[in-house]
This record gives sequence, C-alpha cells and structure tokens, in this order.
Amino acid sequence: MTSPVFNIEWLPYALDLAGTFVFALSGAMAGVKNRLDVFGVLVLSFVAANTGGITRDLLIGAVPPAAVSDWHYLAVSVLAGAVTFWFPSRVNQQWNPVLLFDAAGLALFAVTGATKALTHGLNPWMATLLGMLTGIGGGVARDVLLAQVPVVLRSDLYAIAALAGAAVVVLAHELQLPAEGAALVGAALCFGLRVLAIKRHWQLPLAKPPLDGVPHGRE
Amino acid sequence: MTSPVFNIEWLPYALDLAGTFVFALSGAMAGVKNRLDVFGVLVLSFVAANTGGITRDLLIGAVPPAAVSDWHYLAVSVLAGAVTFWFPSRVNQQWNPVLLFDAAGLALFAVTGATKALTHGLNPWMATLLGMLTGIGGGVARDVLLAQVPVVLRSDLYAIAALAGAAVVVLAHELQLPAEGAALVGAALCFGLRVLAIKRHWQLPLAKPPLDGVPHGRE
Amino acid sequence: MTSPVFNIEWLPYALDLAGTFVFALSGAMAGVKNRLDVFGVLVLSFVAANTGGITRDLLIGAVPPAAVSDWHYLAVSVLAGAVTFWFPSRVNQQWNPVLLFDAAGLALFAVTGATKALTHGLNPWMATLLGMLTGIGGGVARDVLLAQVPVVLRSDLYAIAALAGAAVVVLAHELQLPAEGAALVGAALCFGLRVLAIKRHWQLPLAKPPLDGVPHGRE
Repeated sequence: MTSPVFNIEWLPYALDLAGTFVFALSGAMAGVKNRLDVFGVLVLSFVAANTGGITRDLLIGAVPPAAVSDWHYLAVSVLAGAVTFWFPSRVNQQWNPVLLFDAAGLALFAVTGATKALTHGLNPWMATLLGMLTGIGGGVARDVLLAQVPVVLRSDLYAIAALAGAAVVVLAHELQLPAEGAALVGAALCFGLRVLAIKRHWQLPLAKPPLDGVPHGRE
Repeated sequence: MTSPVFNIEWLPYALDLAGTFVFALSGAMAGVKNRLDVFGVLVLSFVAANTGGITRDLLIGAVPPAAVSDWHYLAVSVLAGAVTFWFPSRVNQQWNPVLLFDAAGLALFAVTGATKALTHGLNPWMATLLGMLTGIGGGVARDVLLAQVPVVLRSDLYAIAALAGAAVVVLAHELQLPAEGAALVGAALCFGLRVLAIKRHWQLPLAKPPLDGVPHGRE
Repeated sequence: MTSPVFNIEWLPYALDLAGTFVFALSGAMAGVKNRLDVFGVLVLSFVAANTGGITRDLLIGAVPPAAVSDWHYLAVSVLAGAVTFWFPSRVNQQWNPVLLFDAAGLALFAVTGATKALTHGLNPWMATLLGMLTGIGGGVARDVLLAQVPVVLRSDLYAIAALAGAAVVVLAHELQLPAEGAALVGAALCFGLRVLAIKRHWQLPLAKPPLDGVPHGRE
C-alpha cells in the first residue's frame, strides 16, 4: 500500500513544514494579543514554530539545524506571521481555531521529531522525549519571551499527548513496523488526545504545596 | 586604499571586542537599575554582550564559540561590568549614553555576525538573519533574565536597523565588492537608522488584537 | 591512598548522578510551590538538574550531551520529581532541607563541570567558569521558566561558592596535584561557603542606581 506520496523520505519534510505553519500561526496570535510590533509578531512566529526543532537538532548534533540551513522554514513562518498580523480577525474567526492549529502542530512535530531522533541513532527513551520536546519546545520559548510561566507546565493534557504520539513512532520502529503507518497513527493519537483534553477539560493532577510553607528555591 | 589596519582578518575581531564592550555596558546598566548584586551585574554584562554571538556560533557549528574559547571576550565584559557597577553615575552621566552605546554595539555585531556566517558558508538569507540575531540576541537574553518581555519585540526600530546593516554586508559579498568598505557602510547604516529612530520616535506598526477577544495560547 | 572507589573515571559519573538527584529535588520543590501539574514538576526537576550540564556540553562540543544520550540522568530526575510531587511534606520536613540539597548539588556540579571542561582541553579560566555554569545553570533555567529573575543574580553568596570549588579543581590540574583529592577539597569548600553564607546571611554588594534615574535599556 506504500505509494510514492507516502515515501518516508518525503513525508517528514512535508509534515515539518505543515507543522511549522500552524505553530507559527499560534505564536503570531500570542504576539498579536500582547500587542507586539510587526517584527515582534514575526519573531514569535519563528520562535514558536522552530525552537523545538532547533533545540532537538542542537542536542542530537545535527548542525546547522534544518530551520537555519533551509530557508523554507523561515519563509513559512514569516508567511503565517504576516497573515496573522494583518488579518487577526480572519485567523481568529471561529471557535478557538488556535487550539486546533496548535493540536495539529503538536501532533505533526511529535511524530517528525521522534523520527529524526531515531534516524540519528538515539535510544528509544530519548527519541520519545525528543519527539515531545520538538512538539512543546516552541510553545515554551514563546511563553518565556512573553515573560509568562509556560502554559504547558500547568495546563491541561498537552505534553502527554505529544509523548503518546512520539511513543507510537518509536514503538513501531522497535517492532520494525512500517514507519508511514506509525506516523499517521501517532499523529492521530496525539491530535485526538489533545482535542479531547480541550473539550472535556482533562487535567493532570496539580501539586499540593505542604501546609507549613515551602521555602522558595534558595531564598 | 586597503591598509594593514583594515585587513579583513583583523577587522572583525577588533570590532567584535569593541561591540562586546559597549553591549556589556548596556547589560550592566540594566542590572544596576534592577538592583542586582555585583555578580548579577557581571553576569548581565557577559550575557548581553555574548549571547548573540554564542547562539550564532552554536547554530553554525563553530564550537566551542569564540566567547568561550577566547578569554578576551570575558575580560572585556567583566571590565565593562565592573566600571558600571562601581561608577554607575559616571556611565550614566550625559544624555542617554546607553542608547548610543547600544546603537554602536548593534551596528558592530550585525556586521561581524553576518561576516562570520558568510565565512561558514551559510546562504545569503540566513547570513543576514544571523547577523541580526548576533545584534539582538544579547538584549533578548538580558531581558529574559530580568523576567521582562524583550524590548526589541515591542519597541521602536531596532532589529530592522540590524537587518539593514547585515544585508549590506551580505549584498556586497554576493556582488564581490570589498568586504572592508561594506562593513563600514553596513555599520554606519545600522547606527544611523537606530539613532534616527530614537530621535524621531520611529515605530513599527503595532498589532491590533481582534475585538472579540483573542484566545491566549492554549488556555 | 587512592582506592578503586575513588578511581577518577568512576568518580565524576557517580557525583554527577548524585548532584542530579539533589538538584532535581530543588527544582521539583519550586514547581510544587508554584502549583504546577505533575508534568510541570517533572520538567522542572529535569531542567533544574540538567540544564547546566547540557549547556556546558553544547558549549564544549560534547554532543549529544550526557544528559540526553544517557537515560540515567532522566531516570534520576524523574524519580526525584515524583517523590517531591507525591510527598512534598516529607521532602520539606525539616529545617530548609532544600537549601542543603541545593548546596550539595552546587558543590558536586561545580567540581564535575570543571573536570569535564578540563578533559575537553579548555583553558583554565574558561574551565573554572564552565564549572560555575554547570552549578548555576539549572537554577537559572528553573527561575526563567517560572518567569522570575534568577535568584542567583540577586541573592546571597551562591555563584561565588561554585566558582571557588571549580577553581580548586582547575588549580590542582595546573599544578598536577591528584584530581581525586582536589575534587573532594573543591566540593567541600563550595559546600562550606554556601552553608556559611546561608547561616550568616553573607551578601555580595548590591548595585546602587544613580540618583538621576537610569534609562532602562533601549526605552
């Protein structure tokens, strides 16, 4: 059933650019909401879309990172940022489209991130984690630039969905199952988990600080 | 007209150290204003002066980065930080000297950053962007450490000036014009644009959030 | 007096894992206090424990960093994070245990960080600084993720203790004294300085902003 369209060499690249576009929309929207200038919005587009992948590439030694050596990532990010800057109402039109964009980007990045880590010979545990990092890294960098605690650290089910998607890809690789199918299943699982978590307000358990007060770091 | 003083091998290094000094002054001043201790002020000096270049070097694979393998960058940063810590009024004496320091550092770094990216074989688009990143990276890191939204993302014309300076260097390289002259013209253009932007309060257009409220990220 | 237990090849690895555990406790406690969810607490554990070492490894070109290629660091971090998440009162039981954990982690990391930088051929100044960075990097990243000014930049004697511990290791290396003894002396010096600083409220001098107001960065 493997068609040229689903050729494994082609698939990660196309998914990567698609994920870049949707994550850039999400980053640009956060920039618009915080009333940044046009340059700031474009920077947040690029950062939200590419920091996860750049960090992954630095950690596995794939230097220069794809997002730096290949100008398509920049072009796609800037396009998404410009559309969001000049037509924010259009992008924002319907019910929470940003959340759907974000869920799709998360699914795509978790899958392509884990795939790239595997092709660089990382062990299964770290390939799964780097898939998750590829998915959540951009959102963390976006929030840090906006001087906010990253929403992924205190929000509903988000990173776990990326972890599940990446795990499917890594597991299929270990069992020598077809990579194309695993990518589709992993992305669908991550997207589905994330959308369900939004609709049903699934949350991870929150920390309960001890009653006698917690010393804060080194203070 | 090329004299030994303008030898291309010598020029980027001297400019780099000069830019390091002025950016370190700017970082140290931000630390003084936020009442950090002497170590914090020295860290902000080093971070503001070297993060842009270190990030560029990691991205192009020039490891260890110059600012780590060559102790002159550290010495220059610490010197600027110490002067600012013990004589803040002297540094702050006249009309907004920090802004002029900063504009000079920006011009120097944009030019040397683009030059280094070109010598490492990056394509013209990315060499221009890495020049800009070298210029603005330190200020972004400084503001992130102070838990503030980086001023470059919402302020008057800043990154665009760095972009213009870097573009002159890259364009001259593509047209095989002399690198020394291009570096001078690029730095002058960046410095001039930045100073004019300060004096005339030039701003980039700000984002206009849609009236029906923008969902914030994944919340 | 050198026994197999103090074999230099074995020592840094064991100390590194021990330091990872205590720093992860400190990171997790900060996460619990900020009421993150269980994933956020585990992320802060890993970040506080491993960012210093990962940054050092990226800067010296040791890629992939040990904390990425070796799953023991992850396992130790997650264990410490889970214990803190589910039993915060137990971890918090006695007088400021977090501070002692933190001082021990600082001492261990400063020593192992300087040792690793030396074995990668860095010059003495930068090996000392990278030892300090290994010690304070995790705490800086932890505070940035919590959108706070890193406490190390404005707190009592902290980085100086790490600097002293790393300097002992580097000095012994330059004088060709035994590395095992130097590691113990350096770690003891760092730990002792840090604990004394806490008990006696030693502070570094704070910056005194000039009376006529300091312009803030580029504003």
